[in-house]
Amino acid sequence: MSATQERIRARKPRADGLRSRQTILDAAARLATVEGLEGLSIGRLAEHIGMSKSGLYAHFASKQELQLATVETAAEIFQADVIAPTDTVDAPVARLEALSEAFISHLERRVFPGGCFFVSAAAEFDTHPGPVKEKIAGHLREWLQRLEDLAARAQANGDLDASEDPAQLAFELDAFLLMANMAFLLSDDPDTLRRARAAVHARLDRARPAP
Amino acid sequence: MSATQERIRARKPRADGLRSRQTILDAAARLATVEGLEGLSIGRLAEHIGMSKSGLYAHFASKQELQLATVETAAEIFQADVIAPTDTVDAPVARLEALSEAFISHLERRVFPGGCFFVSAAAEFDTHPGPVKEKIAGHLREWLQRLEDLAARAQANGDLDASEDPAQLAFELDAFLLMANMAFLLSDDPDTLRRARAAVHARLDRARPAP
Repeated sequence: MSATQERIRARKPRADGLRSRQTILDAAARLATVEGLEGLSIGRLAEHIGMSKSGLYAHFASKQELQLATVETAAEIFQADVIAPTDTVDAPVARLEALSEAFISHLERRVFPGGCFFVSAAAEFDTHPGPVKEKIAGHLREWLQRLEDLAARAQANGDLDASEDPAQLAFELDAFLLMANMAFLLSDDPDTLRRARAAVHARLDRARPAP
Repeated sequence: MSATQERIRARKPRADGLRSRQTILDAAARLATVEGLEGLSIGRLAEHIGMSKSGLYAHFASKQELQLATVETAAEIFQADVIAPTDTVDAPVARLEALSEAFISHLERRVFPGGCFFVSAAAEFDTHPGPVKEKIAGHLREWLQRLEDLAARAQANGDLDASEDPAQLAFELDAFLLMANMAFLLSDDPDTLRRARAAVHARLDRARPAP
């Protein structure tokens, strides 16, 4: 986790005011996976990070502004922790495996105490239409689209059987990751992560072109 | 949904006091998938169903008692809506398909406005150890175990390939259902349900004994 944070910091040197905003948002993103984005009142967050409420109000005019900024921070953490480390993997099927493994490792290392930030936030906001739900849904769609694009590239390369539907394959891989998230959080049992790894591996294996 | 409620009522005729408690809990279970089980304060619930707070306090001594009773009511609704209608399906592979289809239909008919009650409640309570989390996790384990037991029976019958691990198969089927829940809630797109049906069908097809 500290390696992740270092990557984020290294990427974005910040002036003092911004660094302090970033510190608040890092704490907010982690707290939101435990108490919910709705539980993220400015008062509760100020108490949690030991800042004054007026200090927090200087950064965020409203609860919704705080929530939207928190979602963006979670996306930066996810990008640095899950996506960026796989950037060097070129072959699309290998990249699909690497992304799945990076996600499972992200759960295993408990980067967020409540598992995947976006799954947690989606479960909270799925029945609350508005800009926060839209932003969360947008990030989840983007992730699924990333998997689908890789599957489509793999198919174009001949690394995936012509009978596969890239969108369907992406849906199924993402399902295993989602299941890992729920099962691991509820049971604390690493066996759930082993099952998810096995599912991803078997599914990709089956998708290879028939010899 | 009214058919479901009729089944529940028919199964359990209730005296007046109990019927009123049941009415409260039916409303509480549906409301909880929108506002969360934590959002289910006695005051909020009284307002939602147009009852006095003191009337509600007569039924539930504490918020936790209300939450636990709400989870039990959701389990009764799930039993009546998803599990009972498949009771007549004897062959275990056909029952696995029937249960998956009944779950997807449960989402499609929006029996709970926030999708699967247990997934919604799990996402809220996964980071809150205690009796409410335990009860939610227990119901989810029971569902997964049901799928695993059916897979094991199918294997014993020779309807499932000997190379399959029933627990792994159950994990993967449940993953597709979980993904259907999240994707349908976020997108309102019935295509997500079609993908889940296709995934379940293809996975069970692949699990059949090699000819």
